Amino acid sequence: MTRSLRELFRPSSIALVGATDKSGWSLSAFQNLRDHEFAGKVYLVNPRTEVVHGETAHRSLSGIGEPVDLAFVMVPTTAVLSVLREGAGLGIRNYVVLTAGFGETGPAGKRLEDEIVAFAVEHGLTVLGPNGNGYINAAGRTTPYGLPIPAPLLPGPVGVVLQSGALASSVLSFAQARNVGLSLLTSMGNEAMVSVTDVMSYLVDDPGTRVIALFLESVRHPAEFARVCLRAARAGKPVVALKIGTSALASHTAQAHTGALVGDDRVIDAAFRRFGVLRVHSLEDLIITAGLLASVGRIDGRRLGVVTPSGGASEIIADRAEQEGLELPAFAPDTVARLTGIVPGFATVQNPLDVTGYVVVDRTLLGRALEVVAEDPGIDAVLLLNDLPRVAPADPSVTLQIAGATAERIRRSRVPVVVVSNVLTDITEFGRHVQAQTGFPYVAGGIEHGMTAIGNVVRWSEAVRQVRDVAPAAVVEPPAAGPGEVWAEHRAAGLLAGHGIPVVPAELAAGEAEAVAAAERFGYPVVLKAAADGLGHKSDIGGVRLGLTGPDEVRAAHREVLAALRDRGHPDAATLVQPQRRGGVELLVGVVRDPAWGPAMAIGLGGVWVEALRDTALRLLPVTPDDVRAALAELRGYGLLTGARGAEPADLGRLSEVIARIGELAVELGPRLTALEVNPLLVTGSRVEALDALITWS
Amino acid sequence: MTRSLRELFRPSSIALVGATDKSGWSLSAFQNLRDHEFAGKVYLVNPRTEVVHGETAHRSLSGIGEPVDLAFVMVPTTAVLSVLREGAGLGIRNYVVLTAGFGETGPAGKRLEDEIVAFAVEHGLTVLGPNGNGYINAAGRTTPYGLPIPAPLLPGPVGVVLQSGALASSVLSFAQARNVGLSLLTSMGNEAMVSVTDVMSYLVDDPGTRVIALFLESVRHPAEFARVCLRAARAGKPVVALKIGTSALASHTAQAHTGALVGDDRVIDAAFRRFGVLRVHSLEDLIITAGLLASVGRIDGRRLGVVTPSGGASEIIADRAEQEGLELPAFAPDTVARLTGIVPGFATVQNPLDVTGYVVVDRTLLGRALEVVAEDPGIDAVLLLNDLPRVAPADPSVTLQIAGATAERIRRSRVPVVVVSNVLTDITEFGRHVQAQTGFPYVAGGIEHGMTAIGNVVRWSEAVRQVRDVAPAAVVEPPAAGPGEVWAEHRAAGLLAGHGIPVVPAELAAGEAEAVAAAERFGYPVVLKAAADGLGHKSDIGGVRLGLTGPDEVRAAHREVLAALRDRGHPDAATLVQPQRRGGVELLVGVVRDPAWGPAMAIGLGGVWVEALRDTALRLLPVTPDDVRAALAELRGYGLLTGARGAEPADLGRLSEVIARIGELAVELGPRLTALEVNPLLVTGSRVEALDALITWS
Repeated sequence: MTRSLRELFRPSSIALVGATDKSGWSLSAFQNLRDHEFAGKVYLVNPRTEVVHGETAHRSLSGIGEPVDLAFVMVPTTAVLSVLREGAGLGIRNYVVLTAGFGETGPAGKRLEDEIVAFAVEHGLTVLGPNGNGYINAAGRTTPYGLPIPAPLLPGPVGVVLQSGALASSVLSFAQARNVGLSLLTSMGNEAMVSVTDVMSYLVDDPGTRVIALFLESVRHPAEFARVCLRAARAGKPVVALKIGTSALASHTAQAHTGALVGDDRVIDAAFRRFGVLRVHSLEDLIITAGLLASVGRIDGRRLGVVTPSGGASEIIADRAEQEGLELPAFAPDTVARLTGIVPGFATVQNPLDVTGYVVVDRTLLGRALEVVAEDPGIDAVLLLNDLPRVAPADPSVTLQIAGATAERIRRSRVPVVVVSNVLTDITEFGRHVQAQTGFPYVAGGIEHGMTAIGNVVRWSEAVRQVRDVAPAAVVEPPAAGPGEVWAEHRAAGLLAGHGIPVVPAELAAGEAEAVAAAERFGYPVVLKAAADGLGHKSDIGGVRLGLTGPDEVRAAHREVLAALRDRGHPDAATLVQPQRRGGVELLVGVVRDPAWGPAMAIGLGGVWVEALRDTALRLLPVTPDDVRAALAELRGYGLLTGARGAEPADLGRLSEVIARIGELAVELGPRLTALEVNPLLVTGSRVEALDALITWS
Repeated sequence: MTRSLRELFRPSSIALVGATDKSGWSLSAFQNLRDHEFAGKVYLVNPRTEVVHGETAHRSLSGIGEPVDLAFVMVPTTAVLSVLREGAGLGIRNYVVLTAGFGETGPAGKRLEDEIVAFAVEHGLTVLGPNGNGYINAAGRTTPYGLPIPAPLLPGPVGVVLQSGALASSVLSFAQARNVGLSLLTSMGNEAMVSVTDVMSYLVDDPGTRVIALFLESVRHPAEFARVCLRAARAGKPVVALKIGTSALASHTAQAHTGALVGDDRVIDAAFRRFGVLRVHSLEDLIITAGLLASVGRIDGRRLGVVTPSGGASEIIADRAEQEGLELPAFAPDTVARLTGIVPGFATVQNPLDVTGYVVVDRTLLGRALEVVAEDPGIDAVLLLNDLPRVAPADPSVTLQIAGATAERIRRSRVPVVVVSNVLTDITEFGRHVQAQTGFPYVAGGIEHGMTAIGNVVRWSEAVRQVRDVAPAAVVEPPAAGPGEVWAEHRAAGLLAGHGIPVVPAELAAGEAEAVAAAERFGYPVVLKAAADGLGHKSDIGGVRLGLTGPDEVRAAHREVLAALRDRGHPDAATLVQPQRRGGVELLVGVVRDPAWGPAMAIGLGGVWVEALRDTALRLLPVTPDDVRAALAELRGYGLLTGARGAEPADLGRLSEVIARIGELAVELGPRLTALEVNPLLVTGSRVEALDALITWS
């Protein structure tokens, strides 16, 4: 597909089919090609009008009589296929279909769309759309695009793929306002043939693209998406995504608690994390972060040195740094000594550094301080707060000279220097001029979004080191189980134990005597539970009896639980007797199968925490013990595991191994496993034990 | 002070004292007055130079020989007082002191500053600063301000007060980029004499100011701040604040748990909430929210109708609305019917509404849809997604006509209409022209910040209805207690019970027999605790024994607890016996005295929740039961109180009354009360009982 896309995005001639003065789309496409200086030929095709947009039009594609590389199709819905037929006959291989009325309108439209795709596949055509606005190849000055493109169109390193037509204009305006150049922007439309992942794949291979920015409504091809993201990570090209909306997680997960906890959007988060995709939450952050990634590449550490001309801004930066998990370490003694020699006597030398308003008097102050801070051995990057000038002064030479000196210092810096402006205002024409003339680097727009962008770059730099290919798991023979079957605890626990997961000892008891005998073997107190396949939450029927301290209590509990089971149609059920554990911290480990992304694991603190707080971390499977450890550290109640208030700290290494092993087993059990829940998993120091388990099969 | 400030901010003549070509501040102040067309006279004063900034300078204030209303002082630190002396002699009453080197540099500077204030007070002078940049009275075109002011300076309804010099330029640039006009902007400096609250008070009375925007590093005068905020609320003028930094909460609160929970920044949150101040977290939100408040005033409800030309944008808006707690209710049937007649057949009529890219063909589409949605009876406001044009087309008349028609529809709307742009780019000169020509309203910049602003306006509209004057509490006679004394539970509980707060029954026991007798009266199981003044956490010394089921256990517990107390130097201590409660939900209610804001109450879920999760809500005292109820609803574990997973729901009315009563008592106990903690407060249905209490006195 990448070779086809190279053709699609680099035509030497374009025919606008269905061109008419009456259509804003037609006019925009025509003007875009003219105003942004498309080097090839443009033909207008209209069967009924001789002159369109002031040019002579052709009656049909056939009437052009010269080779056409790309047809930009704006004809009525029902006429699109015949345009493709005509074009295919003429050897035209590439099509952008702006026309709407296809799959997005319902089954009838979908049939038309399918016909088009079938025809295209059969004849080796490439079709972008339908129902998209086209694309903008900024580097190639090729703009078959049906909405106005604001001038100037800035070519550059960011490739943009949008599952939205209307937002493209906003992205273009905003990128221009940030002086962020684009390599390619595509408005995908219905993705009938060319998909988001196809274009991403093209951009991974495109030497002109350093960062891929996505606006996504849905991920239509999860497996392909995963593959191309891993390829991007290996190529060192960040993928930044604004993913909106929520789709329903299949309701078959309702049986286990976990189902309620795994919001679909959190699965997306988990998937993006796994594949190294940086998720942003606004259009502004999409472009500002992509621009910064294209400019500085990686930032390998969280320690930031901050140089500003403002105390107020320094404090905003300090607040935001904390929110982004960035550190502002104290400067090294040598740095402090050198800065003391530079800043005015009334300034305080600290990180963040405020060189003070004295910059008004000495305009070199900020640059000299930057040079010193950039050499501090204890930082991984410098944040330089420095607005670009908005309006050209009468004599711009001093401004250019100062900017040039700063740019030179930034180029020479050992660590990345991120320039951030105070507020998010447009980079003006003069600002762009200063950047072009002096090599002054990218300016992240405003402290608010700039700090988000720095946090994002740091997170991506960490994530991309951890992205890994995941070998498909060897599926073990799934145990015999009927469809939709829910396994009783002892069967589930047996399966876990058979695969190396520690479970609490337990004995099945058919009668009171057996129950008492088991209890005596374990020693009191014991737990007695209902044991019957097909039961979900045992506690809902009073089927969990805790803290039984003697034979009489065991006998009574056994009787009552069996009676409750009989009432629910389990005449031959038994009970399960276990020693009662005390102390420790309860966790929940649940696996559900997401229809798009496969098995996902929720890890949380058990009991009331899960119920009331939804304090869980979610990961796609498989997970390594290190992944689990990071997930545990995300929990709000993490302190309970590390010994808050004198509790025994959990052996996190052992705990993470056990949880990772549960995930491994869930993967090995293959797609028939609908849900697996260990709740609670009890950890007491280095003892980790599953106290209860539930498995559901499809 | 307000009368003095009216003089300070409206001078007819200004002397720039210490004017020199060598100073950027001097040049800026001079150019600002000239370029922004100050109508009065400007005098330059320099003892050693005849011509400054191309104008004839005066040797001294005395040398001017004409009346001067305001002296803008830029002389060296040690010369400032003599300028004031000279000015006072000449009858000059108003001073802006730009000069730094005063209180901000240390004790020596502070002494100089104090001298200036003393002299000013003695001679009836008004001094803004020192160490500020001056002010900008945009409406009055009076700009004694020491940094460049970007043109055009837009007058308008937002008054800005900044505890930062350098950020003023950013605020000005950003306000201009948003087409938000300012009434007054002041850069406060050291607030030696004129304080933030003084200027706020002036702005409350200023008819040209509709919204007050603050950048705060610290609230220097909490009581005054509270008073002026309440006055602003009564006047219907919103106060929006970006408050940064954290200051240390006095460590004397360490005794009670609550101390660790009451972060200083959360006290600020609680104070702002109490006084109706809207807190924002970026400079962008400060201006965007202030602009929207100035434009739409109140929005009395959370139900939003959304009209856009873009599906992608609609989905971003839906996501953001949920985050802001806004609702997008389904349209009424009549609205749906009317919209179906307007939008293209392939559009889906729903809220948020995407009228589709067909707006390219029919530019009236968005406005007509807006008119219908605005009449829907089920919404409180409309969000119209509509970018202002950036560049003037060849013939701007159509653009102006469309904008004018939309503006007219917005004026006629029953509910407020908030216009939001897709992304945060500058409003260009042409955009401003369109707004000026057509009355097109304020445009909140970008979906991201626009949704924050709408959420803010809704929250402010709710908060301002609840802002109330708080009558000073009648202080009850504080019980006799030595300084720093920590009361034993039974004394604290006695005090609570004596003031109408339900506490669990308890009996003091000096000996084993008494303890057993008490236990028998209550019935087993019982709790036995250490009872000795000066003890903090009893459990740290094993001083809390739960679930004692018989006389032997009680005797043993009594012996052991007394022994532990003796070991800690409490030879004459006793134990406290209480019935053991089961079930219910434990809460923590703690009061600490914040040095700035007075008594504040933390309400949280007790036990491990407080320890590990810091799940508390904080309120300044006093609180009403309604305040408490809102605070409870903020807790992450709120579901535990409302009957999550089949638990008995708490009687929230009764619970809120008891908690409010605890707050009332804490206030009545007066400033000697350092901390009061009820932990746990047990709620089981409608039974609410303090199970333990701790009081610390200063």
